[in-house]
This record gives sequence, C-alpha cells and structure tokens, in this order.
Amino acid sequence: MTATAITPRLVCFFSDYGSTDDFAGTCRAVIKRIAPEVQVIDITHGLVQRDVLGGAVVLRNTLPYMPDRAVHLAVVDPGVGGPRRPVALRSAGDRLFVGPDNGLLTLAADADGGVTDAHLLTNEELWLSPLSATFHGRDIFAPVTARLAAGLPLDVVGVALDPASLARLDVPPPEVTEDGIAATAVLVDRFGNVALNLSAAELEAARFGERLEVECGGERYFTRVVRTFSSVRPSDILVLIDSYGQVALAVNSGSAAEVLSLAAGDRVHLRRVSP
Amino acid sequence: MTATAITPRLVCFFSDYGSTDDFAGTCRAVIKRIAPEVQVIDITHGLVQRDVLGGAVVLRNTLPYMPDRAVHLAVVDPGVGGPRRPVALRSAGDRLFVGPDNGLLTLAADADGGVTDAHLLTNEELWLSPLSATFHGRDIFAPVTARLAAGLPLDVVGVALDPASLARLDVPPPEVTEDGIAATAVLVDRFGNVALNLSAAELEAARFGERLEVECGGERYFTRVVRTFSSVRPSDILVLIDSYGQVALAVNSGSAAEVLSLAAGDRVHLRRVSP
Amino acid sequence: MTATAITPRLVCFFSDYGSTDDFAGTCRAVIKRIAPEVQVIDITHGLVQRDVLGGAVVLRNTLPYMPDRAVHLAVVDPGVGGPRRPVALRSAGDRLFVGPDNGLLTLAADADGGVTDAHLLTNEELWLSPLSATFHGRDIFAPVTARLAAGLPLDVVGVALDPASLARLDVPPPEVTEDGIAATAVLVDRFGNVALNLSAAELEAARFGERLEVECGGERYFTRVVRTFSSVRPSDILVLIDSYGQVALAVNSGSAAEVLSLAAGDRVHLRRVSP
Repeated sequence: MTATAITPRLVCFFSDYGSTDDFAGTCRAVIKRIAPEVQVIDITHGLVQRDVLGGAVVLRNTLPYMPDRAVHLAVVDPGVGGPRRPVALRSAGDRLFVGPDNGLLTLAADADGGVTDAHLLTNEELWLSPLSATFHGRDIFAPVTARLAAGLPLDVVGVALDPASLARLDVPPPEVTEDGIAATAVLVDRFGNVALNLSAAELEAARFGERLEVECGGERYFTRVVRTFSSVRPSDILVLIDSYGQVALAVNSGSAAEVLSLAAGDRVHLRRVSP
Repeated sequence: MTATAITPRLVCFFSDYGSTDDFAGTCRAVIKRIAPEVQVIDITHGLVQRDVLGGAVVLRNTLPYMPDRAVHLAVVDPGVGGPRRPVALRSAGDRLFVGPDNGLLTLAADADGGVTDAHLLTNEELWLSPLSATFHGRDIFAPVTARLAAGLPLDVVGVALDPASLARLDVPPPEVTEDGIAATAVLVDRFGNVALNLSAAELEAARFGERLEVECGGERYFTRVVRTFSSVRPSDILVLIDSYGQVALAVNSGSAAEVLSLAAGDRVHLRRVSP
Repeated sequence: MTATAITPRLVCFFSDYGSTDDFAGTCRAVIKRIAPEVQVIDITHGLVQRDVLGGAVVLRNTLPYMPDRAVHLAVVDPGVGGPRRPVALRSAGDRLFVGPDNGLLTLAADADGGVTDAHLLTNEELWLSPLSATFHGRDIFAPVTARLAAGLPLDVVGVALDPASLARLDVPPPEVTEDGIAATAVLVDRFGNVALNLSAAELEAARFGERLEVECGGERYFTRVVRTFSSVRPSDILVLIDSYGQVALAVNSGSAAEVLSLAAGDRVHLRRVSP
C-alpha cells in the first residue's frame, strides 16, 4: 500500500480553549499546515475551564456519535508544563486519543472497549519548535494529531506505556439511601439542565413513581419524572432522562441550575414521596 | 447517472445550541459519520434560545448569501419531544430545509419562491436509534440532513404534507401613525444594533427627512437617519439601513440596545420632528 | 497551466464578529458560494470589538503557525463605510492579506518580510451587489478573498498602492526606568492572562532575578518569574513568557486580569526588589 492510499482519519477536537482567543483556531491551523488533507470537526471548545471530570464525561458521552476511526484530540490541561504526561492511546474500537494523561481520555477510551495501546509522546521530531511551556495543544498535541490522522503508526509517537499506568478519574457513584438516592451533579449545560451521575436504569430501580422530592442546598422541591419538557408547565421543575441517557434535572423554559442553585460537583438527594 | 456522480449539497447549519456545549459539534459529527463527503458550514449557533421568530428572521435574511442548492439545517425547537412535527421542505429555488415545523423554516422558504414539497419525517430508518426525547437535532434532523445532502431523494424521508398546512409565523407589521411609524424590534445583534420590522422603502415613504424622534420605553430621543456609523459622533444615536436592508437603530461606538433599553419584541415609535 | 491545476490557498479567517450573530458564518457561506473548493479555517471571531491593535497583535503572533500561502482574511473595522480603504496585500513570504487599511494587516505583513504588493479594492465586479454600508466583510472582503484563494492574480482586485502609504499602528514600546521597566498590557485572554508589550529578551536584559514587584492601578504586588503555572501555588501571581514569546502576568488557577484589575492598554511597572 502506498502512502496516498491511506484514507485520513477525521479529527474530533474538544477543549476548554473557548471561542474568545485564537487557541483552538491556531491548533486547527497547525493541523492543516502539517496535513492539509485532514478534516477537523470541532465538537466543543466550551468545556468548563480546567474541569477535567466534566470534559471527560462529555468526551465519553459523545463518543458513539463520532465518526469511526477518528483521532480524538482533547485538551483540558490545568497541569500543562508540569509533570503530567502527554500521551496518545488506541482503544479496542480503533479510535485514537491524544491529550494530557490526567484522566480526560481514559473515561472515553475505557468505554470504547478499553485502552489497547498507550504511548508517551517522546518523539520531539513530531513537535513544534521552540516548545512553549504553556500551550502544548499547539506545540505537541496538534502536530502529533495531524500526523496520526494522516496515517503515522501510533508507535512512532513515543515509548510504549502500560495502559494500567494511565491516570483514571473517580466519578463519584450514586448511593442508595433509606428513602431514595444521593447523587452528584456532573454537568450543567447552556440551557441550565443539570445532569447527575445516575443512569436511567438506576433511577428505575429506585421505583420513585412519577413524583419525587429533590433536596439540594438545604432546600426541597417537588418534581415529576417525565419524558420531555413539554410534559410540564413553563417554570415547573422536572426530572428526565437526558439525550445521553443520564438522569437530569431541568425546568421547562427555564434553568434548573439557577432555580435550584446547582453547580457541577454539588450533591443532590432524590427522595420518594408518600402517594 | 451513478451514485458517485452526484455532487453533494453543502449543509448550512443554524441553531440556538450555543458554543458552550457539544450540541452543535455532535450534530456535525453525526453528519460526517454518515456522509464524510458532505461539507458543513456553521452559520451561527448563537440564535437566541427558543426565539423562533428571531431565528426565522436570520434564516430568511441570510438566505441569498448561502450557496445554491444547500440543505439548510435549522434548529430552534422549544417544543422538542412534543406534538410539533419534524419536517423537510423544498423551496422553488431548489433549496432544502430540515427542522421543526414551528415557523422557523417557512419564513425563509416562502422568500425563496415558496414551498414546493413538504414531507413529514416519518422514515425512522434514517434516524439514530435509540431516539432521545430532547435532542432531535442529533437523532433526527442531522442524519436526515446528511442523507439529503448526499443525494437521497426528498420523498424518501417520509410522507408528503400539504405545504399550506405548515406552521407560519406572524411577523408584526409596522403601522403608519399620524406623525410617523410604529414598528417592532425583531433582532438585537452582538454590537447592540436593533433591527426593526421596517424596510428601507417603508422608511422612505414616511418622508422623515434627516432628523427624527425615536420613542421607546416611555423615553424620547432625537436621532439622525444616516448611511453609516462614522457619519455621526461617538455615542450618538443613529437610524440606518442595516446590511440586510432592515431599518435599524444603532449607536456609534456603542450599543443601541443598552442606550435605549431595547430588546426584541419591544415597540418603537418613529416620529417626524418640526424642521 | 489550466485553471484546475491551481492548488487553492487556504483561508485563515480572523474577526471581531463574535459567535452570537451570523456575521462570520455568512462570510464563510459567501466564500463557499463563490469558490466551493476553498477551505476556510476560523482562527478566532472573538477579537475584542473595534480593538484594532489587539487584533493586529493576535494576527502577527499566530502567523508562523498558519499554513503557508494562506489568504488571511482579517476584519476589525470600526471605520466601515467611512474613508478607510479596503485593501489586499502580499507579504515577502507569499501570504495574502485582505481587510481594512487601518493597521490591522500591516503589523503581521511587516513581520512576514514586509509588504511587497498592495492593492486598493476597486474592482467592483468582484464585490457583492448591492453593497451595504456596514458589512464590507460580507460584501467586499469575503468575495475578494474567495477569488484570491481560488487563484485570481492579486493585481486584478484593484489599483496598486505604494506599500509605504498603508496605515501602520504605533505599538507603545516598553521604557527602561531607574528600577525596572514600564510596559503596557496589550492582550487579555479568556483565562485572564495579561500579555505585555515586552519580549523575553527585554525582560532578561533587565536582570530582575526570580522575584520582582508589579505595580499597576496604584497597587503593588510581589511576584515570581517562573516557567509555568504549576511552579507556584494556586492563587499566586506569576510572570512568565507566554506561548507567543511575550512577557505575561498570570495567576495559577485564577485570572490575573481580575486579581490585578488589568485591561488592555493599562500601564504596568515591573520593579526590581532588594535581594
């Protein structure tokens, strides 16, 4: 097979770089400068700054919707320039992941069948020079991503790592209580919907029925478990299964994060109510 | 003609999904997963949340600047999961429109010569499975858009509808008053410019001359009708024909929305002043 | 050579259009409508509104990371519709620049070896018609960019200009004082890092040692010159060389702009401290 016979992988690009600065755009430019034939899809650059868990949850949630064989370039990297390792991984599903080894990548790669190959990015010939101390997205991750997408074999990027040595996040599990479930808010979206670390199956197992009580921040609210926003009146609080299969708190035509004063990381208690 | 001989249509993607979350990016990924050869142009994802009229005005205004034969994927969908219908339309100008049947699409399609074909999206084989209750952009509209852009005939997406049965918006018309025109603010942009439901021709017919009075929110302001921002001093209020041919209120090096306390939907009275 | 033998130039698109409105998206659509084969990379549309100097600094800083032979479409254009001239330039490095002649383009073009050719955009056949008074990005700059990227010779866009006649910005230079350097904040990024008009070499020449004092807004702060954020504790103020080689003020896991109440244009005094 000749080099030109390789179909480039698509790049799916996630970061907390925002849309105000040139950060994400300059990374895109670096990829196209190295590999003009590679296409970049921006998934989001609005991940909460420095929130590795939130970014990891979004990466994992969206993975099944991404093109097969993509290179997932993901950067939420509060430890940039410090001892955290730059890595590239392959999952059992033949997806590639490039980014910092801080847990951001492994939640998704583990969900895609597990990490089959892990490499430390040590091949400095693939990086930009001079190397900055604070923008490894541009200087390390983007150029390595460009070359992997264009067909470079994974083992060229650097020395092999034991996949078991990679950083992994502790996503706090929900706890069954006497009268319900204690869960944690893991993601707040633009509409103010608050996703919990709680699956549809776990909610069903708790047999709440249609009505339940939500306690958070010392306040209690009565809500209904419904299928969609329009099942309740405007301003009503609701519990639904969100589009990624997570249990979420929402307000019809409003913001649950505001109404319930909730942020990612906050504890939420769902309680049964007497019929 | 073989399948490969079809030139894919470009996709022009409008939504209120914002840039904070993965919503728009995941829809882009779904399109590229299904049809890697299709190009997606993001027009804006900053449409005001749940403001169907504002979104419809932007879609109609920008249409003449969009590539011919595009598929216009437009999502401002406060009724998602409820009884509103998912549809795909063809205009007389051979543009395709995909989105909710809440009036968002028809303002533009009617401006492009009218709707010649309308179909309800009933062919579930084209959708993602499982279908979520709250993210039809990802699960219905994006995959149908991808296939239409790649060349799928429109009638495959579902049963035909009578175009006359589609939802249409009432854009409030300007009213001629004894001493001027009463109009409505329909769009506020990032710079604070406020577009009215008033055309250049209607403004001219009122024969205001160069000076006029703007009344809104109980306050009165003297302004000038000028051709461009730099015709007046910084901080001065001005009336101009905006780049989409609408009459707009603006402030040189400032925000008319702030200075005049105006939001979309507000009433604005333009009055003649004595010479 | 036939028309199809020309490799299109990539377009790198910078503006202050933001992501709320359709402005940047409509320009992209205009480019694709005219030249479907041209690829557009969005570098950023979050440049500070009407801040020509800030935009010029970003354009110059990022230039080495952009694909070779690109067309750089840059729009920060507070004088749109007024007497400022629309221009297209070629740099010694064979990059093309399209935008307003207000200094935005020349800082970058001069850094790329200087302007070798400058043309006033006078060929109205290349523009959209009707021409608006307030959106020359859409009506003049985008269509001219599309044609240049597709291979149109530069001299077709309009009459030649003397490169010496182009507008150039005065970037305020740092001043050496008795006990240090007085510099100016030129850019604040999303993370609140504040870049100064001061290079790594100028900082080194001042021989501050590891510790120094920052004075701004009448307040004094002790800081350390370090290589990366993680060299100091959370909330500590630091001075580092940013990823574009500029001296910057930062706060680990925080915002220097907030902590030091700094905005672009503010004066910052760096002073030596006794050992």
